[in-house]
Amino acid sequence: MSGQDYEVRTDLAVEAKEMYVEKGKQKKGQIKGVEISEKQEGNIRISFVNVDREGSEQIGKSPGSYRTIYSDAIKRQDTSLQHETAKAVCNQLIELLDKNQVKKDATGLIVGLGNRHVTPDALGPLAIEKVLVTNHLFVHQPEYVAEGYRRVATINPGVMGVTGIETSDIIKGVIEKLKPDFVIAIDALASRSIERVNATIQLSDAGIHPGSGVGNKRKELSKETLGLPVIAIGVPTVVDAVTITSDAIDYVLKHIGKEMKEVDKPSKSLTPAGMNFGTRKLSNEDLPSPEKREKIFGMIGSLDEQEKRALMQEVLTPLGHNLMVTPKEIDGYIEDMAHLLAKGINAALHENVKVEEASSYSR
Amino acid sequence: MSGQDYEVRTDLAVEAKEMYVEKGKQKKGQIKGVEISEKQEGNIRISFVNVDREGSEQIGKSPGSYRTIYSDAIKRQDTSLQHETAKAVCNQLIELLDKNQVKKDATGLIVGLGNRHVTPDALGPLAIEKVLVTNHLFVHQPEYVAEGYRRVATINPGVMGVTGIETSDIIKGVIEKLKPDFVIAIDALASRSIERVNATIQLSDAGIHPGSGVGNKRKELSKETLGLPVIAIGVPTVVDAVTITSDAIDYVLKHIGKEMKEVDKPSKSLTPAGMNFGTRKLSNEDLPSPEKREKIFGMIGSLDEQEKRALMQEVLTPLGHNLMVTPKEIDGYIEDMAHLLAKGINAALHENVKVEEASSYSR
Amino acid sequence: MSGQDYEVRTDLAVEAKEMYVEKGKQKKGQIKGVEISEKQEGNIRISFVNVDREGSEQIGKSPGSYRTIYSDAIKRQDTSLQHETAKAVCNQLIELLDKNQVKKDATGLIVGLGNRHVTPDALGPLAIEKVLVTNHLFVHQPEYVAEGYRRVATINPGVMGVTGIETSDIIKGVIEKLKPDFVIAIDALASRSIERVNATIQLSDAGIHPGSGVGNKRKELSKETLGLPVIAIGVPTVVDAVTITSDAIDYVLKHIGKEMKEVDKPSKSLTPAGMNFGTRKLSNEDLPSPEKREKIFGMIGSLDEQEKRALMQEVLTPLGHNLMVTPKEIDGYIEDMAHLLAKGINAALHENVKVEEASSYSR
Amino acid sequence: MSGQDYEVRTDLAVEAKEMYVEKGKQKKGQIKGVEISEKQEGNIRISFVNVDREGSEQIGKSPGSYRTIYSDAIKRQDTSLQHETAKAVCNQLIELLDKNQVKKDATGLIVGLGNRHVTPDALGPLAIEKVLVTNHLFVHQPEYVAEGYRRVATINPGVMGVTGIETSDIIKGVIEKLKPDFVIAIDALASRSIERVNATIQLSDAGIHPGSGVGNKRKELSKETLGLPVIAIGVPTVVDAVTITSDAIDYVLKHIGKEMKEVDKPSKSLTPAGMNFGTRKLSNEDLPSPEKREKIFGMIGSLDEQEKRALMQEVLTPLGHNLMVTPKEIDGYIEDMAHLLAKGINAALHENVKVEEASSYSR
Repeated sequence: MSGQDYEVRTDLAVEAKEMYVEKGKQKKGQIKGVEISEKQEGNIRISFVNVDREGSEQIGKSPGSYRTIYSDAIKRQDTSLQHETAKAVCNQLIELLDKNQVKKDATGLIVGLGNRHVTPDALGPLAIEKVLVTNHLFVHQPEYVAEGYRRVATINPGVMGVTGIETSDIIKGVIEKLKPDFVIAIDALASRSIERVNATIQLSDAGIHPGSGVGNKRKELSKETLGLPVIAIGVPTVVDAVTITSDAIDYVLKHIGKEMKEVDKPSKSLTPAGMNFGTRKLSNEDLPSPEKREKIFGMIGSLDEQEKRALMQEVLTPLGHNLMVTPKEIDGYIEDMAHLLAKGINAALHENVKVEEASSYSR
Repeated sequence: MSGQDYEVRTDLAVEAKEMYVEKGKQKKGQIKGVEISEKQEGNIRISFVNVDREGSEQIGKSPGSYRTIYSDAIKRQDTSLQHETAKAVCNQLIELLDKNQVKKDATGLIVGLGNRHVTPDALGPLAIEKVLVTNHLFVHQPEYVAEGYRRVATINPGVMGVTGIETSDIIKGVIEKLKPDFVIAIDALASRSIERVNATIQLSDAGIHPGSGVGNKRKELSKETLGLPVIAIGVPTVVDAVTITSDAIDYVLKHIGKEMKEVDKPSKSLTPAGMNFGTRKLSNEDLPSPEKREKIFGMIGSLDEQEKRALMQEVLTPLGHNLMVTPKEIDGYIEDMAHLLAKGINAALHENVKVEEASSYSR
Repeated sequence: MSGQDYEVRTDLAVEAKEMYVEKGKQKKGQIKGVEISEKQEGNIRISFVNVDREGSEQIGKSPGSYRTIYSDAIKRQDTSLQHETAKAVCNQLIELLDKNQVKKDATGLIVGLGNRHVTPDALGPLAIEKVLVTNHLFVHQPEYVAEGYRRVATINPGVMGVTGIETSDIIKGVIEKLKPDFVIAIDALASRSIERVNATIQLSDAGIHPGSGVGNKRKELSKETLGLPVIAIGVPTVVDAVTITSDAIDYVLKHIGKEMKEVDKPSKSLTPAGMNFGTRKLSNEDLPSPEKREKIFGMIGSLDEQEKRALMQEVLTPLGHNLMVTPKEIDGYIEDMAHLLAKGINAALHENVKVEEASSYSR
Repeated sequence: MSGQDYEVRTDLAVEAKEMYVEKGKQKKGQIKGVEISEKQEGNIRISFVNVDREGSEQIGKSPGSYRTIYSDAIKRQDTSLQHETAKAVCNQLIELLDKNQVKKDATGLIVGLGNRHVTPDALGPLAIEKVLVTNHLFVHQPEYVAEGYRRVATINPGVMGVTGIETSDIIKGVIEKLKPDFVIAIDALASRSIERVNATIQLSDAGIHPGSGVGNKRKELSKETLGLPVIAIGVPTVVDAVTITSDAIDYVLKHIGKEMKEVDKPSKSLTPAGMNFGTRKLSNEDLPSPEKREKIFGMIGSLDEQEKRALMQEVLTPLGHNLMVTPKEIDGYIEDMAHLLAKGINAALHENVKVEEASSYSR
């Protein structure tokens, strides 16, 4: 990827955009071919990144519409906020389906990507267990299908290390038999920010690369390759040691930077930018000047985000210390997130299902 | 099925043959187009039923070679007998592959049929988790593949009630992408004898009907429909209430019959026929004459096996009392049987894998 | 137990009473020291059996108040009826606590008996996972405890085959440390009627014998031995082959008996007695006269319930064919029943918790 | 803990000793009251730390003998090295039992600490499921107990957040009933080095503090408080973000330091000290001089280990970013480690059980 050996891969469009900006290739503000906006729905912030062909080349993400829902409802175990988040998933999914001309009676195939037996990778398989499946009823018992439902089927294709088969091949094989009108794929992602882990949900119509979530790239599944809309729903569940370290160094820099500023200008009102929830105390504005950063963190402090990560990756990876890690509480997080996603999906796909009654189709 | 409303369905060829004989359509002995033999391998009895076109019409099973391994190694928790049983599975599988001209380097797809979350139906999914998968290594890391291994992939297609998709469609879709040379399908079956539950393993090359194991018939997967050998490995894990009752009535009849005989002819040596292992105390020879049976069990006693089952099914089914049941200890049985099958399969498929080292590829 | 070798053990007081009546020791109607009544709450029938010292000797159950809730909400997967059933559990539990002078602020220990890894025996361990636990908050974070809650703790003591320790010893050891004011013990039971399996919930204040549910008797835990009220909540999840067979023979007899009657008196209105839900088609009144029963089922038909079961047990047990079995769908049944019980318990124990919001404290 | 606000807690004695040395309170070499040695057994390094009263005050660990087995057998999925590691566990456990005068026929209670439903905390509960339990056989079926076995029982006391009861109270209650002669407690620990996670096993006779492993301190269980030997077996399974960052900064410093040295003295033979396995490329000797460290990492680089961690903890903890994390592959690691420990324990406790046959008593 453009000659940078240690570029940190990200599955989130908002992060790809940030990285692009950090690389200094672009001043803060607009990137050509990348349209960015944001809105607030109740307690939930949603960011929108639209990438066209040109923008795709700039930030290295496939063209399409990316929507990122920020919510720490799962981490806080806040059931009412979880409910609100499920509604946001429902709304964004409906918008993406509409944008892709998916009709109300179109048949959907929901794909749960990932390995059921690796907890941080089990989000997809667990979520589809809670998705309301109706396709077989339409075929075999149409009399049991009430008004307002559409045909929905699910598949858990497993992972190549377990099946021995390319995941994309399994999905394509099933698509050729089922002939759905659209595909939704749920997957666990890697993030390059620890605070986004289990706290952001990205929906996009830009297609998926099964296996890229926690490993290597495989074959793409997208509107282009399949001829039908592919909506991806992804939640970051892991980060690498480089990310944790880089984040920590950043926080230390901002912390000291803020202390420095407060001496000069004590009554400052915080206008947070980098962080979106929680006890927002440190912002990018707190980052001290490059000179001060060098004083605090030496030559490391003077490196920009990309250079700093590249250096650490260069050191840690050959030592086997650039581990992918996940929070200790991952079992509960994954279980709750699977419920949340299934609630949003069920309510989005069937007119007669509301978010409040949409989960627990567990068998 | 030929006008008989209450015919008890069986997945085991040995049972289909017995039913045919019981129906009185045929004297004990030969059925045209059905070849029967038996052999003993150490502590394990194996029966062979070969069915041709003509025989198929007689006993209602697809043409092919059926091999039934009898072993109560699982029920007894006898690990050394389990090992012996795994060897028998290995040998019979090798014979069936040879009979179907499957070459040593042919690629195999192992299908784990059934519902992972319904314990007595989870045998297939659990067994394939322990099968040694190599296909992706041949493709992506051939340098890691030692001599004596072949390409093996696995798939758990789920069940239609969960995926909404015909199981046979999922399998066919995967076959079209992977293009294996042969298929092995593992499934949990229903038995019409309580003592065969978790104590018999049937291997056959007669094809499968995914979904028929614990529900309705779906589309056939066989050499005829797919153009490649399909080996089915089935283990009965459930029986219905009619079977339990019919077995119990039979045992009572034999028990009383034996008591009656022993009064007449006290020093009789038992030559058991009906039962194949365990504390063999009652045989079909103990069954009293129809007159005596009527005395003991009234008009019910005078019915033959088929009539008795048909009557009970007629009574119990509309009441919702012809439950499918499974032994209380099913969790442990299924776990152990999955290991046993995987050991037999791994050793059969790879020249360099021995039964004693063949399991525990659990991830 | 009074010299009868093959007496069928039952954990349900209603069954013990029936058995007593069947044994002919007592005419239908009153048993001295056993008070019986019944009521209907919406769609749910509840029967009450009060046993005093004298009655205890008659029917072989410890003295106390037994309440049996009949509901096939789980089997039918009827969520609204499950909710109603949880309410009935809540109400009966409140009544039993009141009857035993348990105060609103008394501390409760909820014991989940059984083996988590044996599905039909996992009801207790699964249910307590969903019980709202507050005791540690009262101790360490009283500021987080809202009005209307009491102190509740839970314990899963395991089973002796796994721990090597008498289950009653573990419970007693914990009681001595925690010093609760009352104990609630949840357990899976055996039934002698297949239709009661997963369809009846017995609550009683007569104490428990851990380990007796699916095995041998161990040491009693009761008000008498512990000096504090012990409420047992039991759900039958298994039956033995003798029960299934005996039930089936009975149904056949009633079916034929009904047909006989209908010839004589065709427009008869059914007044069901034996069965309480489902498609109620056969009743005890349909049972033909002993003479007719003998004609239909020979000498077996002429036996009374106890004699019939004793004969079958005599035949099947030595052959190893008196298996304990459970319905094929047991995984789902146990999961749903655990939720139902936890909802009822949580709402009964805490004034501020309603049945509709009482479950899903799953971590 | 003695006025130091940001002291990093560790469960490992070797780490406590390192921290003490790092704090500069002590020159490298001897600490009064702390005896240190090391040995190599085949491919496995074992370190010994003996702490007496005086040493205890110095390094903040209870007095006793601590043995740490270093092995990356689990991470490498190397089954033969896992076997060797199980042997080392067996040997060290035997030595500790002997040292504490535990007789060959003494009764042991094996406690599996932790939360079964939180994967990185499930090591104890999973390990005891594989421990050979014999106590009930000695009591109820002594005829089944062969020569060379001792009485062993197990208990999973759960965690206070789930039971509402102090874990130490549950254990004490059971001890009072069972009256064992010694206790072995298995627990998941926190480490302050990412490379020790799932790669070190600490055995000690210094007692345990249930709940301290992944949370706050509770009541001590030790020879002093219980009057019987308490052997703790602990494996670090989690680290915090501060540790990951601190390790990463260290590696970067060593990496750059090594590059600097190699310019001066190119043909240097590495004498590793800090790391004990894997691709050992960086050692403490590579750490550049404080001046150079400051140049590279600014004022952060000039801080010693303790100060650096304290600063980061001060910054990250209030932001909620000092997460406890665990490797993505934790499910498999925990499963394999539980087997390894159970094999070592079973072989140590029973004379007639060898390491190679000692596991898989899973039910």
